[in-house]
Formats: sequence, structure tokens, C-alpha cells
Amino acid sequence: MYLSKLFIPILKDLPSDEKIKSHQLMLKAGMIKQSAAGIYSWLPLGFKVMKKIEQIVREEQNKIGAQEMLMPTIQSSEIWKESGRYDDYGDEMLRIKDRQGREMLYGPTNEELITEIFRSSVKSYKLLPQMLYHIQWKFRDEIRPRFGVMRCREFYMKDAYSFDLNEEDAKNSYNKMFFSYLNTFNRLELKAIPMSADTGPIGGDLSHEFIILADTGESQIYADKKIFDIRLDNFKNEKLSLDKMRKDFSSIYAVTDEKFNEKEFNSKVSKDNQVKMKGIEVGHIFYFGEKYSSKLNCLIDDQNGKKIAVKMGSYGIGVSRLVGAIIEAKYQNNIMKWPQSISPYEVAIIPNISKNNREYLKKGIEIYNKLKKQNIDALLDDVEENMASKFKKHDLIGIPHQIILGAKSSNDKFEFKEIDKKSELLTLDQILSKLLK
Amino acid sequence: MYLSKLFIPILKDLPSDEKIKSHQLMLKAGMIKQSAAGIYSWLPLGFKVMKKIEQIVREEQNKIGAQEMLMPTIQSSEIWKESGRYDDYGDEMLRIKDRQGREMLYGPTNEELITEIFRSSVKSYKLLPQMLYHIQWKFRDEIRPRFGVMRCREFYMKDAYSFDLNEEDAKNSYNKMFFSYLNTFNRLELKAIPMSADTGPIGGDLSHEFIILADTGESQIYADKKIFDIRLDNFKNEKLSLDKMRKDFSSIYAVTDEKFNEKEFNSKVSKDNQVKMKGIEVGHIFYFGEKYSSKLNCLIDDQNGKKIAVKMGSYGIGVSRLVGAIIEAKYQNNIMKWPQSISPYEVAIIPNISKNNREYLKKGIEIYNKLKKQNIDALLDDVEENMASKFKKHDLIGIPHQIILGAKSSNDKFEFKEIDKKSELLTLDQILSKLLK
Repeated sequence: MYLSKLFIPILKDLPSDEKIKSHQLMLKAGMIKQSAAGIYSWLPLGFKVMKKIEQIVREEQNKIGAQEMLMPTIQSSEIWKESGRYDDYGDEMLRIKDRQGREMLYGPTNEELITEIFRSSVKSYKLLPQMLYHIQWKFRDEIRPRFGVMRCREFYMKDAYSFDLNEEDAKNSYNKMFFSYLNTFNRLELKAIPMSADTGPIGGDLSHEFIILADTGESQIYADKKIFDIRLDNFKNEKLSLDKMRKDFSSIYAVTDEKFNEKEFNSKVSKDNQVKMKGIEVGHIFYFGEKYSSKLNCLIDDQNGKKIAVKMGSYGIGVSRLVGAIIEAKYQNNIMKWPQSISPYEVAIIPNISKNNREYLKKGIEIYNKLKKQNIDALLDDVEENMASKFKKHDLIGIPHQIILGAKSSNDKFEFKEIDKKSELLTLDQILSKLLK
Repeated sequence: MYLSKLFIPILKDLPSDEKIKSHQLMLKAGMIKQSAAGIYSWLPLGFKVMKKIEQIVREEQNKIGAQEMLMPTIQSSEIWKESGRYDDYGDEMLRIKDRQGREMLYGPTNEELITEIFRSSVKSYKLLPQMLYHIQWKFRDEIRPRFGVMRCREFYMKDAYSFDLNEEDAKNSYNKMFFSYLNTFNRLELKAIPMSADTGPIGGDLSHEFIILADTGESQIYADKKIFDIRLDNFKNEKLSLDKMRKDFSSIYAVTDEKFNEKEFNSKVSKDNQVKMKGIEVGHIFYFGEKYSSKLNCLIDDQNGKKIAVKMGSYGIGVSRLVGAIIEAKYQNNIMKWPQSISPYEVAIIPNISKNNREYLKKGIEIYNKLKKQNIDALLDDVEENMASKFKKHDLIGIPHQIILGAKSSNDKFEFKEIDKKSELLTLDQILSKLLK
């Protein structure tokens, strides 16, 4: 893409005093635009990042055998009345009357709807276990939406649901998701800590939050630093291995301030290993057994022909929230650096262009076309602007690699820079091999 | 995917008297499930097809330089009051009050919102032309939703918007979309006819519907059969070529019953060339100039520094509707055959399995694994069931190629069948080369 053609309304000044840096960056870099309180449009740059995150989430869900489907945004109130949550949910639920006067709502979560789909489709234990997921817009009518996409009203979320015959199998499904989540966050180059959590309005008796580290996070975290030594590639998607994985994580102290107890912390974790950090919740998983299946009468025949309520869990990842959370984790000293796996472009080509000298631009176009042939998605900064302004702009855009074409480059060697690192003079072949690795 | 694991609730009987065949098939084959009147969940099989259609639509939009973004589903009423359509839209607009009592709505279309985004981002002719699109859920509160996904309330649609400095450029953007739409429908293996159309509630003075042929279509079409002789690959994405393309199409008689006039038809089209068919609208494009930009004050500086209203068009393709429309076009004599480009799986492996003989299943698994290594997405029918029932089921699922493992197959030759065609005995290598071509 040529930057001059990209729809990327970069702001010089922020319209108001946005409080957190991800919100500031996303507005400044033209990633999003607010359409109403807590409701955003995703402009091409932000959209691209979100789609890449979504794709990684999807691939890791597919890997553990979850099947993708899609439930609608608008639901009937009836199933929520069956579960008893229609009244419980309060004002955060966006309630709607359609033209016939029927009570509808914009789904804030989907336990009821998936249970209703499952109960009408599956009657026998033979079709278990099942894991279904979708990635869909949801709405929670926050009283005070703030922090951009971090606490907005319309948000994009992956939610998965597991269905099992008994608690043992259900715990195995839970562990698979646990494993999938850690792999997902690894691919996003995030340090994520799973923490035992309260179950809140979803309910149930087993739950973990996944919290990523960021200086500006909303939660205070207390942990034993040994938790960072657990290597995920020591485990496999097999029952015993996953049991061990969850045991290993659970045995190490890690809590948010809600569950924090100073005395316990000091007794369980040696002073040297104590870490106190800030973090952001990006995922939450629940095992709640028969909570919904019994209320909604989601029964299956077990091996003896007896009708029993299916055992369920639910598993959420905030896809749109992750865009903000990753910025909180990766935007340091006014310089953004996207993880390569989700960067909007793989490399930025930044030629020095002036009225009298368009040679570097010419070279830039040449390199751009060569990269394109190798399927490398580059952003060519073909805007006539001084280099200082260009670099400032690219500090916002955050593409992790840059090819800089100016005084330092020769006929066949170009300045190649990874953000945070020293630049090198390399041939195009050397640059290609770095980008393709 | 093993069929025994796939979440595909195939129905033996239809719950009620669904009137059209796409609705019947989608329910029977477990592609969708109704969640409320005119609101559907997309189960894995249906979801996969819809996603493949979406991806083709996306690629063809990207090819003409349109940039993808994403607007939210919930909009503020304010911009609709600015355009004057808030009252015009009537009961089809799903109106919502949030917890603060603000008037919101579920977007039925996005002319207002995109204009609002554009006016706050682009101030100069230098950034023109621009084409932006998104693929998002929309809601129209139909008084009588029916025909499954063909006339539902929550539907998935690609809508694009063009912004140009003057009418000539705007017509060029219009022609690009015209070209993109025809390419899209070609890739979906559909015969689509562009027809000059009324502009309806969108407004404007130039508009085409794209209608695909299907015996059970809702619209009556009258055309000169010469329209099928126009070859799209004779044209390029360049101004003069696109001008000629639209002229070529426009010069040939093709209208729906709304504009039909028997006398005109007989005078313009020779008897031999007259075709009368049924069709389904799957796309609609509009050029409406300043209709929204002037009302919403979307002004840019032209080359002389004068502020002028930007010239706009809008361009829709019903992505969820296409799933139904393609079934209407391709489901014949109770046998579905998906176009290969959007088939949920590339090939079905159907072994004959009985209690006493699991040899064919074993062979099927072997073939499945070999195909997987070649990145061929196969569905292995590992269900123990007689072959007649299996074939009946696969007539619904509609995968265009089958590998049948039974009495006819030998140690190294297998029955390979393309739906509608005679089966052949082929080696796996021969099958592979057919599938990979």
C-alpha cells in the first residue's frame, strides 16, 4: 500500500483528554474513530490489526478441535427468562422492542443461545465432547464507557462453549482452552498469566482470568516470578499433559488485588521471587457444570439411556480489547512496536523525498514492487514531507521494521531498522531474508 | 474433518412448511438454525460457506483498490436526523433507547455514518478518489420475515462507498464496482446480469441491480440473450475499458418486470433472442452525487481552494443472502452442488462401513491423511450407516467431489465422482491431480 492512498486520518492534536495511552494512540494514528459514546468505527489500520488478532485466535481455537459458527447479535428475551438472567443482568443489557413489540436484546454473552442450539440438536452422549465458538460483536451498555476500545459498549469477542458428558471430560475441555489461550497470547508476543478468578455473573465453580502485563494495567498483580519459567512447549494437547500443565500453573502463587493477602503472599513466595505488577484482563474461562443446561433443559442420553444435563463451560477472549491491551503493553516512550504477527504491515519503506530529489522515492517503489513479488505486505511512505515528521508518524503506526532510503543508503545497500534496535546497512537480499524468516 | 465430530444437525423432517428450497436445504442440512423470527444462527457448515463467499467478495473489492474498515452495528440517531432519513425509514429501522435514554438504532445501511467519518477525516481533493467498504451485520425489521436468509432481519452485507471530486471520476468509481461485482459473481460460478434499476430509499440518479438466474427467483427478467456473450476478460480495470464495458452491457436489453414493456421488448429484441427467466437480486449499486455530502456538510477543497460537496456512490452485496441465492441456483432435483470455490469441503470421502467390515473406513482414513498433507480440506464420512442413507445426506451437504470406497474400489483404484457426472475409477494420484487443478 502507498501511504498517500491509505485512509489513515492521523491527528495532529487529540480532540479531548483521553486518559490512557492505547486510546490516545488509536485516535492519533487513525486506527479508530468514535461514532457514539463507547462505540467505534475501525478505520483500515486498526481494522487490519484486529483482523490479524482474530485470525490467530481462530487458528488456536481450531487447533484444539473447537468448531466455528456464528450466532446473531440480536436475541430473543425468552431464553434469558428461562435461565433467569433477564432480570439479573440489569441496565448493562441493551433491551430492544421490535416493531411487533417483542422483547429482544443485543447479546452481551451467549450461554443461553448456545444452550438452546445445543439442546435442539444433540440428544446423545455419542456426539460429545463438543466445543463450539464464534467471534461476534456484543454489546454491554456500560454506564460510563471509557478508555477507548478497552471499556467500550460495542465490542468484538471470541466466545466458546464446551459440552461434556461428565465433570472429568468437562475439565479436560477446560484445560484444552487453557492451553489454547496461552498459545494464543504467546503468538501475540504477550506475557499472559492465568489466575484463578471469581466467576461473577457467568457463575460456576472454576474460573481463570488471563492477564497480560502492562505498566498501565487496571489490575494489580502479585505473583511468584517462577510462573514465567513454565514453558508451554513442554505440554501437549493430551489429557495427562494438560492436567499437569494446569497443576503446574496452579501451584505457583499469582493473584489480582481482589484475592490478595499480604500475609499469604509473604509466606508462600520468597522475597526474591515476589513480583508486583500491573496487568490487563484479556481472557476469562469458566466451568459451570449444569448451571445453564439444567435450567434450559439441555439433556442428553448417557450410556445407560438415562437423561442427564450436559456439563458446560464458556471461554471468552476480548478481540477488540486485545488491540488496546497490546498497545498498553508495547507502546513505550511514545514509540509503538507491533508484534510482527499482527503488525498492520510487515515493513515500512521510508524514502527521503523532496521537490528536487525524487530518486529515493523511485528506489522505494522499486523495492516495494520486489517485496510485493515475495508476498511481503509493505507500506511505502510516498508522502512528500521531511524525514523528522515521517519518523514521528511511523512511531505511531508502529510497523516493527523499516527500510530507510536517504543519505545513508548506497546504490545497493539500504538502511534497515528494527524498532528498538540499531539500524544496519544491508542489501535487499539480506533484508528479504530477515523479513521472510 | 470427520463427519462424526462435525456439529451438523441434519434434520429428518422439516419443522414447518418452509416455502423455498434454499430455506429447506439450509435447515435440513444443519447450515442454520432460527433463533428468532428472521434471525438465524449459522452452524459450522453454513458458516464455512458464508465465510468463503465473504472472502471472495473481499478479494474482489481489494483488487479495485477499495479499503476495508468496519463500522459498528449500533449508530446514533443524530446523523440520520441530519440526512433526513430518520423519519423516512419507518418501522423497518430497529430503533433503540440506551440506558441514558439516547436514541440509537441498528444500522440498516451506512451512508450517513461513512459520510460523517469522511467529513471529519478528509479535507482536500488530494486524497481523492477513495473507496471504503466494510462487511458487517445489518438489521431491517421486516414486517414479515420469510424465505430463511433470503428475507431475514439480521443479515450480513458488504457495503462500499466511493468519494470523488467530480462526476466523471465518480462514474469511474461506479464502473470499477460494476466490474468488481461481475468478477465476484463469476468466481461464485453464477450468471449475473446487471440491470438498470430504480434507486429507492438510497436515492440518486444512476443505479444497477445485479440479478442471478434461478428458476425459483423472485424477479421476472426479460433480456436479450446476447448479454451472456459479453466476456468480462475482454476488459481491464482502466477508465476507457470500463467505460466500454458498461456501455456494452447497457446497450443490451435486460429489465425486471418493474420496467418491463412488452412492446419495447418485441421491438428491441428479436424473437429468437428473447429470454424470460426468473432471478434473484444479490447486489445493488448507486451513484447519488451530493445527496448525503451536501446534507451532512461533507466538503472538500478543490484544486482552486473552493469548498465543494464530495460526490458519492454506494455499493451493496448481500453476503448472507448469497448463500441462499446460490442454493436456489444450484440445488436441482434434490441434489445440491456447491461451486468448488465456496464448497464447505473440497471433497467428501465416503467409505462403506459395516459392523463386520471396517476395511473401507481404514482406507478412507489413509486417504484423508494423504489429502490433508496436500492441504486438501476433506470431509470423511466415518458414520456407520448404509450407503443409500449416506448418499442422501451428501446430496444435502453438496460437496461437489466424492471419493467412494466400496465394492467398486480395488486396492489402488477408487471411485471418484463429480456430482452430475459419471464416476471414474482412479488412482489416488489421479484424484489428487484433479482436485489440485
